[in-house]
Amino acid sequence: MSTHHRHANDFLHRVLRSRSIAQVEKELSPKLHEGPAKVLGSSVLNDEAIRRRYELIGDADAIRSEIFDEWTQRRKDAYEHSIENFIGTVKLPVGLAGPLRINGLCAQGDYYIPLATTEAALVASYSRGCQVINEAGGCTAMLLNEGLSRAPGFVFAGLKEAGNFLIWVINQLDEFRGAAEATTRYGKLIDMSISVEGNHVYLVFEFTTGDAAGQNMVTIATQAICDYISKNSPVKPLTCFVEANLSGDKKASAASFVSVRGKKVSAEVALSGELVHRKLHTTPAKMCDYWRMSAMGAILSGTMGVQGHFANGLAALYIACGQDAACVAESAVGTTRMEVTADGGLYTAVTLPNLIVGTVGGGTILPTQKACLDILKLSGPGKAQALSEVCASMALAGELSIIAALSCGHFTRAHERRTRARHNGQPRS
Amino acid sequence: MSTHHRHANDFLHRVLRSRSIAQVEKELSPKLHEGPAKVLGSSVLNDEAIRRRYELIGDADAIRSEIFDEWTQRRKDAYEHSIENFIGTVKLPVGLAGPLRINGLCAQGDYYIPLATTEAALVASYSRGCQVINEAGGCTAMLLNEGLSRAPGFVFAGLKEAGNFLIWVINQLDEFRGAAEATTRYGKLIDMSISVEGNHVYLVFEFTTGDAAGQNMVTIATQAICDYISKNSPVKPLTCFVEANLSGDKKASAASFVSVRGKKVSAEVALSGELVHRKLHTTPAKMCDYWRMSAMGAILSGTMGVQGHFANGLAALYIACGQDAACVAESAVGTTRMEVTADGGLYTAVTLPNLIVGTVGGGTILPTQKACLDILKLSGPGKAQALSEVCASMALAGELSIIAALSCGHFTRAHERRTRARHNGQPRS
Amino acid sequence: MSTHHRHANDFLHRVLRSRSIAQVEKELSPKLHEGPAKVLGSSVLNDEAIRRRYELIGDADAIRSEIFDEWTQRRKDAYEHSIENFIGTVKLPVGLAGPLRINGLCAQGDYYIPLATTEAALVASYSRGCQVINEAGGCTAMLLNEGLSRAPGFVFAGLKEAGNFLIWVINQLDEFRGAAEATTRYGKLIDMSISVEGNHVYLVFEFTTGDAAGQNMVTIATQAICDYISKNSPVKPLTCFVEANLSGDKKASAASFVSVRGKKVSAEVALSGELVHRKLHTTPAKMCDYWRMSAMGAILSGTMGVQGHFANGLAALYIACGQDAACVAESAVGTTRMEVTADGGLYTAVTLPNLIVGTVGGGTILPTQKACLDILKLSGPGKAQALSEVCASMALAGELSIIAALSCGHFTRAHERRTRARHNGQPRS
Amino acid sequence: MSTHHRHANDFLHRVLRSRSIAQVEKELSPKLHEGPAKVLGSSVLNDEAIRRRYELIGDADAIRSEIFDEWTQRRKDAYEHSIENFIGTVKLPVGLAGPLRINGLCAQGDYYIPLATTEAALVASYSRGCQVINEAGGCTAMLLNEGLSRAPGFVFAGLKEAGNFLIWVINQLDEFRGAAEATTRYGKLIDMSISVEGNHVYLVFEFTTGDAAGQNMVTIATQAICDYISKNSPVKPLTCFVEANLSGDKKASAASFVSVRGKKVSAEVALSGELVHRKLHTTPAKMCDYWRMSAMGAILSGTMGVQGHFANGLAALYIACGQDAACVAESAVGTTRMEVTADGGLYTAVTLPNLIVGTVGGGTILPTQKACLDILKLSGPGKAQALSEVCASMALAGELSIIAALSCGHFTRAHERRTRARHNGQPRS
Repeated sequence: MSTHHRHANDFLHRVLRSRSIAQVEKELSPKLHEGPAKVLGSSVLNDEAIRRRYELIGDADAIRSEIFDEWTQRRKDAYEHSIENFIGTVKLPVGLAGPLRINGLCAQGDYYIPLATTEAALVASYSRGCQVINEAGGCTAMLLNEGLSRAPGFVFAGLKEAGNFLIWVINQLDEFRGAAEATTRYGKLIDMSISVEGNHVYLVFEFTTGDAAGQNMVTIATQAICDYISKNSPVKPLTCFVEANLSGDKKASAASFVSVRGKKVSAEVALSGELVHRKLHTTPAKMCDYWRMSAMGAILSGTMGVQGHFANGLAALYIACGQDAACVAESAVGTTRMEVTADGGLYTAVTLPNLIVGTVGGGTILPTQKACLDILKLSGPGKAQALSEVCASMALAGELSIIAALSCGHFTRAHERRTRARHNGQPRS
Repeated sequence: MSTHHRHANDFLHRVLRSRSIAQVEKELSPKLHEGPAKVLGSSVLNDEAIRRRYELIGDADAIRSEIFDEWTQRRKDAYEHSIENFIGTVKLPVGLAGPLRINGLCAQGDYYIPLATTEAALVASYSRGCQVINEAGGCTAMLLNEGLSRAPGFVFAGLKEAGNFLIWVINQLDEFRGAAEATTRYGKLIDMSISVEGNHVYLVFEFTTGDAAGQNMVTIATQAICDYISKNSPVKPLTCFVEANLSGDKKASAASFVSVRGKKVSAEVALSGELVHRKLHTTPAKMCDYWRMSAMGAILSGTMGVQGHFANGLAALYIACGQDAACVAESAVGTTRMEVTADGGLYTAVTLPNLIVGTVGGGTILPTQKACLDILKLSGPGKAQALSEVCASMALAGELSIIAALSCGHFTRAHERRTRARHNGQPRS
Repeated sequence: MSTHHRHANDFLHRVLRSRSIAQVEKELSPKLHEGPAKVLGSSVLNDEAIRRRYELIGDADAIRSEIFDEWTQRRKDAYEHSIENFIGTVKLPVGLAGPLRINGLCAQGDYYIPLATTEAALVASYSRGCQVINEAGGCTAMLLNEGLSRAPGFVFAGLKEAGNFLIWVINQLDEFRGAAEATTRYGKLIDMSISVEGNHVYLVFEFTTGDAAGQNMVTIATQAICDYISKNSPVKPLTCFVEANLSGDKKASAASFVSVRGKKVSAEVALSGELVHRKLHTTPAKMCDYWRMSAMGAILSGTMGVQGHFANGLAALYIACGQDAACVAESAVGTTRMEVTADGGLYTAVTLPNLIVGTVGGGTILPTQKACLDILKLSGPGKAQALSEVCASMALAGELSIIAALSCGHFTRAHERRTRARHNGQPRS
Repeated sequence: MSTHHRHANDFLHRVLRSRSIAQVEKELSPKLHEGPAKVLGSSVLNDEAIRRRYELIGDADAIRSEIFDEWTQRRKDAYEHSIENFIGTVKLPVGLAGPLRINGLCAQGDYYIPLATTEAALVASYSRGCQVINEAGGCTAMLLNEGLSRAPGFVFAGLKEAGNFLIWVINQLDEFRGAAEATTRYGKLIDMSISVEGNHVYLVFEFTTGDAAGQNMVTIATQAICDYISKNSPVKPLTCFVEANLSGDKKASAASFVSVRGKKVSAEVALSGELVHRKLHTTPAKMCDYWRMSAMGAILSGTMGVQGHFANGLAALYIACGQDAACVAESAVGTTRMEVTADGGLYTAVTLPNLIVGTVGGGTILPTQKACLDILKLSGPGKAQALSEVCASMALAGELSIIAALSCGHFTRAHERRTRARHNGQPRS
């Protein structure tokens, strides 16, 4: 039997062996008569509400002392509009990677990069990549495109009605822009595209969102367009949904990958063979051999793009800097490419088409998150484009470091060392 | 001109208009002679090292007071093996969703779910989904499969040598198991599969990892197999890489999506029409209409699977509970399906094939993260399977809530309300 | 062990068991010294050249009598510019499906559709779909978009040079149009988009191609643009490739799927419940249940779009009508959607975004292929748009028929019957 | 506005400009009252039935003389079980590529390859690839795996019932094998895997099919398993569908791509730099540069695998040799990889995981198709494995030829020459 089947088999035997059918029936059945689950209080964050929440959890003193510590108690008002049913804060350790010298269109100079992670070796690995880039005079980074979309869906009786709707729609871009931009100071409607699937019509509105990540901004603006359509279209849609899941929000999608979602950035660096040898203890040829086999590995496993571990650095930087960590699902796609240069060095480029970053609004205004952006000197208006170039450049550093380690067999040792350290020399994890 | 081009055009004009070619040349060129970037100290976390790091950042008092607060100073030793170049902690607000009643093979009972997020409305939305599930007697959840892979790559002179290698390899599973399991107390080698691409051979080793997420564990075990192969294979590989990027680690991949990576879980619930109306203010038919159009939207945009926003809940729970947030990139895929039942109710199922969760090791031992697992009563050995069923059940709650809101036009209003609140009534964001 | 491994294992054992390593070595090694392979003559198609080709095959009288029959001998000049190393013709049986009533923007009326296939039951199945559509007054079809792309690639020293190239390129669309359209009477350059990946720049030129499929036309036009760029660009590319594999030519690609390649068409029909019951022996609800589960099946298996068997009808029509059968690889993607209507009927829509069809040039001028286009009354200029609507409408008929059969358990029986017939009642195939 | 929108806009304007809304309404509306479409006669192929079909087409003498020529009239009984509503044959020109020297596990020797195509230059290009391979002593080919699946779907009330069904299913493989293999002499059930999605259970049965392509064989065998399940399962499925669209039949799917569908084969060859220069007029380095950029192009466009034009050769060989041309949709995926070797030569490998080929049954028994298989000496039992290695080797030849041409700028010229020839020197197509 096959992997999947055999595993299911093993698993089912292991879990179900000791159970009777009757037990399984009981376990998996709805429990309507076991007393109502206790409902959490309102979403306010006054002390009394927080106290009641801990009461519901039960036996919660130890939990409370960690999560609702004094700093958190003192600063809790800062979280008023960021969370509901607040009970405190979770603390993630922050390490500094870098500095990383970036020669970008928007990011210029040496950046210390705060990374929040619980994965040992991650900060060290990205730092190693930064150092080798710095010795080459820094990496080049180029913001290539911007745009964030919302994709409302409209249902019609049939293609005929859909077609008549389209004839109207294609001449309404100015009106749509007016309706959308009345809801926002920073959002600009820059484009509309259309996808028809039978009697379903998706309009894809693309916005720039200033220095905010902008997901809520484009929702509200698109709602305004939908309201305008409902009022003014000569062919009324039977139904309108403000987002019909074509925008790629919070998921890796081919449509976003082949165009842009948020910001698209390329970063590159050329390292001499001597530098690769001295700092990374491998050779450009070995790294390219690894790159080729790992690119084929990515292709054979069916990923979007080919890359090593964009997700590691992005998640750590997103969390530290108050970005939406759920967007790692869509941001951690792209490409890494390596080549041996004519003079025996190593050329490496990364391209990340779906970076969702902002330097105003959202989590960027929270105390520690703003402090992390301040480390980058990228807090507040006018900084989001530079932040996107920092993300791509950091990804480049991470790819160099991990591919170097994998190319010459150092990868396991680095992880082994950390793991051993953690377990005080106990050899078996 | 097309979207992409026009955007690039707009962007390039905006950014480059005011620059001469000479300026661009200067900005994008390596900066070798601008003085060496200051190197960060060693990875130790004693006070002196931390102080020096803040010195490097420069003008860092305000930053330091937020990140390296008293709680952090007191507890910093807890992070010794989780981070390098430590400078403090970033704090994320935690809200409680639930309780969520789960009738699972492994998770049984009512769970309060800690979510760490900076996205307003997220906890409230997941909580709403939990409440409606509870009123139906809870959801059913079923862990379907487990397995975590590493995929070393081997290079040969040609297919002939690769073929002779394979003839040997297919009879070595017991030896590989011996080598692998000598490195770990909890990891079990449960399967091997093979992918040949010309003179490249990928072996895919699949492990169970006890209650740990297990990525390092399988790396070390696989290294032991590679060492065994290098020593014993009658046909020596020219090169061996411990991971050749076929395992889907830290990225959404078709290979993981169609089988399993980590844990695969389905969760389902049937709601009566009355309950949908009373609690969600919509109807099963409207929700299914939305589901159908949004599933087609996902298909038309080329996502893996079809779902609404798995990433939101997963990222929040992973961060709160010390899971690896970078794994959101691979975990946030799967399917949501809705149907109107024969009695006019709503059947909803979610399936998440790539949940990477653990209840021992990694970030789960850090103070606040352990506390969050304690809220779930899922800290420590023997709990990882239940945690995976909680993840899927929570995803089910989130899908019900967002699809209900989108089906009847409440989605924008919810976000508008939050956004307005945040800006103290300023109408334009 | 897993499926893949176990199979490889089984296979290797079966094939290799009886062989020594030495034999395998011999079999898989280059054969340089076994006498030169006899080279085929020139590509001319005179009788002497054809005779020599049959000589090379050896013992070829029976082969020749089938392939180089009298009709073929008489008409062989017709193939002069379509083939090299000509030896005759292969004959595929043609069956008529339809008539199919189409109410399209471009196709209007009842179409008899010639299908060339060797797969029993295919013509009958598509015909059944046509009949049920006709009884509903025909299907609606709508050509939604047109465009065929070529994607030349340009290599630069780095991002800086690539950026400076882009600044020039975005203002050259008129010049590119002039260069491109000087090479073709029918091709029009309608768009350009840009994809940058490090020091690699892809320009994607999109053309309309009149009534030709147009792949060669756009190659030649794009070469003219490349020549213009080489001559005039202020930043010379280090290398230029006329097609760098971003255009989706001859392969299913997400980029083509989410936009258009060739022609994009939707077709739809609404059937009454009575008609579904009387003609298809099932119910709208059963068909929608099957559709939902099969759509999820497609999603779980990772196809582009969701559909049943577009490839069957498209391959048969492409072959009959002189279209490029290799384009089935890119054309056979898209979506099928079914819903129960408010009045208990069945709504079905199909959308095919990558139809590559022409009614002039290529294989359309060959004798039997032109005759098949004449059956459709769609041979020659001005007919390609209508042909694309016929393709989509035929796909709709095929989906209705197969989904009806699968929904009620008739699918196997239809195939069993045909297979039995073929084997004269022998029960076991 | 964006590409898609603007095109839709342009197209809609062009097509709809001259029409009133009323006209569009009329064109796209069902035509119930325009007289019943004339129905085609029964599926028999006697002369009278054929005559009546031509009558229905109307004005069909010219068509009939091409399609229902004397050879076809004489041999029409050969098509009795391959087609319905027969009206004659379409003729495709066949050219010989090769010979191609293959050193395979199953294919051994020099093969003349019949290709049926209407695309000028295709046979010449594949032949060029064959010649260069022959000079290197032939290519190596290796069949890696075999298996063809059917994926019946079962619906249950909920996960609980699905789970109880699974507990039973995992112990029934022997019984399923018995039921399945009672329906077929050649088919063998070799594996079963399971995919659960809520209350939907897909069982994936994998078969070997002897020397037949086998799609019907596995349908009938799977129906027998479904019947067995319906009769014997302790938990009765509410519904059972014999194929729930998870098998990848007639469509490119990730699930088939990452494992096997039909036959999986790798082929490789190493060419000296001198040979590349002398025969292909380029260099290994240039070819690898092109390969790298085109592989990235494929990745950026989101194809399954990376390759140039597998579809061209496969479609031509499938049509010539009586294979199912619709399977080009699934077969034309895979990978091509090129590397410069240590001695300055060129290593190239192709891997095709989804070759659907047979040498018995289906179209392989038709007169001209059997003749084409006879040219390969691969007609009849015991030859399907060798045929799959021929397919992959031919694909290798095709990739070498096209990548050589594209790497050095000869691609356009080859097509220009052919196109000019066809149009008798008219310069503009």
